[in-house]
Amino acid sequence: MDHPGDLSELAALIAAGRVRAGDIRAVIGKTEGNGGLNDFTRGYFTQSLMLLLASQMGETPAELAARIPCVLSGGTEGALSPHYMVFSVSDDPAPGQRGLALGTAFSPVTPARDIGRAAQIRAVVAAVQAAVAGAGIARVEDVALVQVKAPAPPVPDPAARSTDAKVLMTLSRAAAAVGVGVALGDIPADKATEAALLSDFSLFSSRVSISSGIEVTCNEVVVFGRASGWAEGITAGVAPMTDLLDLAGVQAAFAAAPGEVLGVIAKGEPDRSGAIRGHRHTMLGDTDLDAQRHLRGALGAIVAAVAGDGRVFVSGGAEHQGPPGGGLVCVFARRRDTA
Amino acid sequence: MDHPGDLSELAALIAAGRVRAGDIRAVIGKTEGNGGLNDFTRGYFTQSLMLLLASQMGETPAELAARIPCVLSGGTEGALSPHYMVFSVSDDPAPGQRGLALGTAFSPVTPARDIGRAAQIRAVVAAVQAAVAGAGIARVEDVALVQVKAPAPPVPDPAARSTDAKVLMTLSRAAAAVGVGVALGDIPADKATEAALLSDFSLFSSRVSISSGIEVTCNEVVVFGRASGWAEGITAGVAPMTDLLDLAGVQAAFAAAPGEVLGVIAKGEPDRSGAIRGHRHTMLGDTDLDAQRHLRGALGAIVAAVAGDGRVFVSGGAEHQGPPGGGLVCVFARRRDTA
Amino acid sequence: MDHPGDLSELAALIAAGRVRAGDIRAVIGKTEGNGGLNDFTRGYFTQSLMLLLASQMGETPAELAARIPCVLSGGTEGALSPHYMVFSVSDDPAPGQRGLALGTAFSPVTPARDIGRAAQIRAVVAAVQAAVAGAGIARVEDVALVQVKAPAPPVPDPAARSTDAKVLMTLSRAAAAVGVGVALGDIPADKATEAALLSDFSLFSSRVSISSGIEVTCNEVVVFGRASGWAEGITAGVAPMTDLLDLAGVQAAFAAAPGEVLGVIAKGEPDRSGAIRGHRHTMLGDTDLDAQRHLRGALGAIVAAVAGDGRVFVSGGAEHQGPPGGGLVCVFARRRDTA
Amino acid sequence: MDHPGDLSELAALIAAGRVRAGDIRAVIGKTEGNGGLNDFTRGYFTQSLMLLLASQMGETPAELAARIPCVLSGGTEGALSPHYMVFSVSDDPAPGQRGLALGTAFSPVTPARDIGRAAQIRAVVAAVQAAVAGAGIARVEDVALVQVKAPAPPVPDPAARSTDAKVLMTLSRAAAAVGVGVALGDIPADKATEAALLSDFSLFSSRVSISSGIEVTCNEVVVFGRASGWAEGITAGVAPMTDLLDLAGVQAAFAAAPGEVLGVIAKGEPDRSGAIRGHRHTMLGDTDLDAQRHLRGALGAIVAAVAGDGRVFVSGGAEHQGPPGGGLVCVFARRRDTA
Repeated sequence: MDHPGDLSELAALIAAGRVRAGDIRAVIGKTEGNGGLNDFTRGYFTQSLMLLLASQMGETPAELAARIPCVLSGGTEGALSPHYMVFSVSDDPAPGQRGLALGTAFSPVTPARDIGRAAQIRAVVAAVQAAVAGAGIARVEDVALVQVKAPAPPVPDPAARSTDAKVLMTLSRAAAAVGVGVALGDIPADKATEAALLSDFSLFSSRVSISSGIEVTCNEVVVFGRASGWAEGITAGVAPMTDLLDLAGVQAAFAAAPGEVLGVIAKGEPDRSGAIRGHRHTMLGDTDLDAQRHLRGALGAIVAAVAGDGRVFVSGGAEHQGPPGGGLVCVFARRRDTA
Repeated sequence: MDHPGDLSELAALIAAGRVRAGDIRAVIGKTEGNGGLNDFTRGYFTQSLMLLLASQMGETPAELAARIPCVLSGGTEGALSPHYMVFSVSDDPAPGQRGLALGTAFSPVTPARDIGRAAQIRAVVAAVQAAVAGAGIARVEDVALVQVKAPAPPVPDPAARSTDAKVLMTLSRAAAAVGVGVALGDIPADKATEAALLSDFSLFSSRVSISSGIEVTCNEVVVFGRASGWAEGITAGVAPMTDLLDLAGVQAAFAAAPGEVLGVIAKGEPDRSGAIRGHRHTMLGDTDLDAQRHLRGALGAIVAAVAGDGRVFVSGGAEHQGPPGGGLVCVFARRRDTA
Repeated sequence: MDHPGDLSELAALIAAGRVRAGDIRAVIGKTEGNGGLNDFTRGYFTQSLMLLLASQMGETPAELAARIPCVLSGGTEGALSPHYMVFSVSDDPAPGQRGLALGTAFSPVTPARDIGRAAQIRAVVAAVQAAVAGAGIARVEDVALVQVKAPAPPVPDPAARSTDAKVLMTLSRAAAAVGVGVALGDIPADKATEAALLSDFSLFSSRVSISSGIEVTCNEVVVFGRASGWAEGITAGVAPMTDLLDLAGVQAAFAAAPGEVLGVIAKGEPDRSGAIRGHRHTMLGDTDLDAQRHLRGALGAIVAAVAGDGRVFVSGGAEHQGPPGGGLVCVFARRRDTA
Repeated sequence: MDHPGDLSELAALIAAGRVRAGDIRAVIGKTEGNGGLNDFTRGYFTQSLMLLLASQMGETPAELAARIPCVLSGGTEGALSPHYMVFSVSDDPAPGQRGLALGTAFSPVTPARDIGRAAQIRAVVAAVQAAVAGAGIARVEDVALVQVKAPAPPVPDPAARSTDAKVLMTLSRAAAAVGVGVALGDIPADKATEAALLSDFSLFSSRVSISSGIEVTCNEVVVFGRASGWAEGITAGVAPMTDLLDLAGVQAAFAAAPGEVLGVIAKGEPDRSGAIRGHRHTMLGDTDLDAQRHLRGALGAIVAAVAGDGRVFVSGGAEHQGPPGGGLVCVFARRRDTA
């Protein structure tokens, strides 16, 4: 993609019959904005995508945006390359097979006053459960990863938990992550309180990745896992990273999904202690360069170096996503013998 | 170090008798500025270092600054940690041994009008030759790495090759790199013209690392190599990186210097083609985040992940230093059996 | 506007019948991106605007974009407020009147190889002449201001005058400015050479304002001036600024357009000498903050303080637009007695 | 000054006998860093200043730094120019005169746990009272301005009020401002609680300017006012700004100090409502450009445009300093007839 509004490659695939617009269930991608509150590359891409799909189908852009999760993370620092992954599902029966399943769900619209509060946690729990059920995933143990795009309010709201929009954006990620953790059984429901958000970092799931932004108004959920009736051949390998330098963690995720790499999702965060393995880092105190931009550039390069490809979905802000100061990597791959 | 003026750890080592101030021959380090023209953390560190050494020795800060190279690179993006390496040399004889040698030299003061011109190239050639000779390195093939701090003018000079100070800073790195390449035999002397700078990128050496900044007024040269009469035990392993994602290149440098890692130097650059392995990167067109900050964050993380330590000297701006779009890594290590 | 894709206020005006979509001839506005090469807020706004207008008229977004100039400048630093000015023209006859006229024109598509070259200058001259004629402005002396959106290539082109996309963006402004200057008689045609661009700053017009960006592919021209047959009541006051601190120049432009201020356009640039009135400024050497962001924040605040309103179109990069180191201000106002 | 360590102009004035080192009581200046937590230009300047003064007097740099306030604010965005004001006091008697008086005081060292707490407020109250008394200012009504440099901790401290160092830097300004307000009688002592900091913005003084930074460890106070026994001729004019666009407020401060302008101090802040005079600004939500850099660029330009000179001390972060969303301006001038 040449810019955040450039969907020409997907348009060409559709025109060539290689992708059927009606099969598309979710899009996850990286655009080249700053990844923060004032990153409008996400909204630009979403608008452009829905216009393209609407031109192919009998639905309006608004209708499509309300049923196809479009999870974008801004920021392609360093070695990263702007790209998007299109997840399509066909109706072809796969009898007797058990493979990578995909389910999606949207929570109701989340008003500013609910962001970072118990109401958002509950809404995400319900949405994840709906997506798991929709995918036909029998047990939460079979979920590989849940990706959520959580809302941030575009304008201040006095009823919101914080008057600082950047803080709300962070709280939204935290609430969504904890909600997923509860739904997956990785976080005890009774500990998933509003007070625990951004406070009790012992609560986390290593199977959840959240982005937030003003371009969505509810929690858009995409669940990946294994289920019966889905075609074999594509696998998802997930591994936690204990800290930012955990090269072995990254390699473990790739080892868990052998074959042709189709896509990679990674989350991480600047260690809140201000140090990594005992040595001071400068990500959190830099007035000129946002901590998440620091983080994505570093984590993205490590993952891209292992992948040998800069098209990696790397998102900062891993609150309650993977161990504190660490994160997680999820690799989608197609087994070579199935190609 | 807590900040760029914090030399307390070196002061403590000197106070404890573990480092003799008079043995110090060069300092190479990373400070947490932006690494660009207006990065004053380098000058602050240098002033603080020379004040400390002056308090221990019978020389003024200015005298010390004129004979001890202090090569600083600003920018500790992402996983990097501010740190400095102190290179000391003792007079203890090492008869019959052949080990890592160190030589230093200063070119005459380089006026703004000479920066990025043939005069600077010639001055660097001469300084490298003096440093090689001073170290007792018999053949240029035995040089592992030449590190140079090259000057940038603090104020505009109409006689300079460019009116853009940022361009002069880049030209200074290029001229110094080409000068080193000629001195080492890696670049043919007849091709090392002013016109070739930043133009003919087929001219490069994979044994040279240059930083530039306004805090120095001449070319300060540090040469590392193998020579007789130097103690065994410490080795320098150097390997080129073919591109930013060349994880194998990084690992090769570490493999070439087995043992306890004492320090790491790496250089790299954003690929000028705008793409890495065929996929667009966004380092060169970002109005908000300088390309070199992008680069250091990415390269630094990859090298730090292999090292398992954020204390890595990573410098962007690898013009004529390593292959185009790539760079190089140099690892200093102490053999474990010699500890 | 709440974000760069928010056209709800114009939509409401159209719905209320206060603006007729078919009357709109040009839109000039500020979006809140960084104003540089990777500012996609301009493209996002343009796409959103054309979608809105297309929904109201019998034309596609592409057709509308090809005939309605949409001149956006990114960057609302400091006191500035994101906003857009919609210029509408009605067919109501104004016999015997002489008032503010508006004309528009598009050059042919400008390929990357023509940017910053004589071909672009010539194309702009022709487009300005067409717009002046279309507006019915009898003499170029009656032109108050020419606003141009000039193209920048989204991807590198080896045939371009520079391999640096940021330099091309600057060259495009320079060529368009010189083209306007020639068309208005402010710059001698024989001096308007490719070599003079960004070199001979004695060539300038104080009646031209250029923005450039990758969201347009040709030179989109809007001309304002006085002509017969246009309704009286709205005036445009224009004054040059001799330097960035020329408060009197700003006040002169407001004095020249008494009444209710409808919109303000200002251009300026960081003084290339590195100093303003003898004192060093730091806009040009800042690695973390782009010089144009510095400039817009400063110039915008001065103009906004005089206007008492942050909705000011301020654009940096005033090459050949106003005197070197200075710029110009244009105020649109409605005479109070005509309200 | 060519860079933050450049004291050559003061050195020349001392060498020429135009300034006596022993007469210097305070230095207030702007350096060209980012003005935030990781701005080390302030520490670099302070170190360089104290080295210069120590070379002229029989005291060490540390002794001088403990008695001469050196109040630096980083950030010379836009039209601003790096500079420093040297405040000297002579012992010449001025019998029967009443003029601008200067007093200084240092609080005890403020540990990280006291920052932004009642202990810091009390310490500042006491220091201001000491400085007022030392200057011989009879009544607090006669105080024109109190300038404070307040501490920020260079490393995290679990006992501190916030784990976020940037928040501590803000809290330190707030506590110091409220402390000054209490000492001057502008803020009721019983309302000056820890809880009121950054919360009750109805508490403010329009005669106080605070900067904070890691380069100081206590609250350094400089008081300006009118007192008997001080020479006539120099005046300080102070006026509040009701909002960022309050051009009349700026002009009022200049009108209150007619004559040759010797120096200007201004404070301001981004309006927390997100709007100025009803129109949205984008300072607070910008991920790439710190809100204080936005603010300084805008406010600095307005004040510099009125002054006709970029050498203006402008500092952001005006919590409890001037009215909310506004700020204040203080002009030092020498009456022309007294030159």
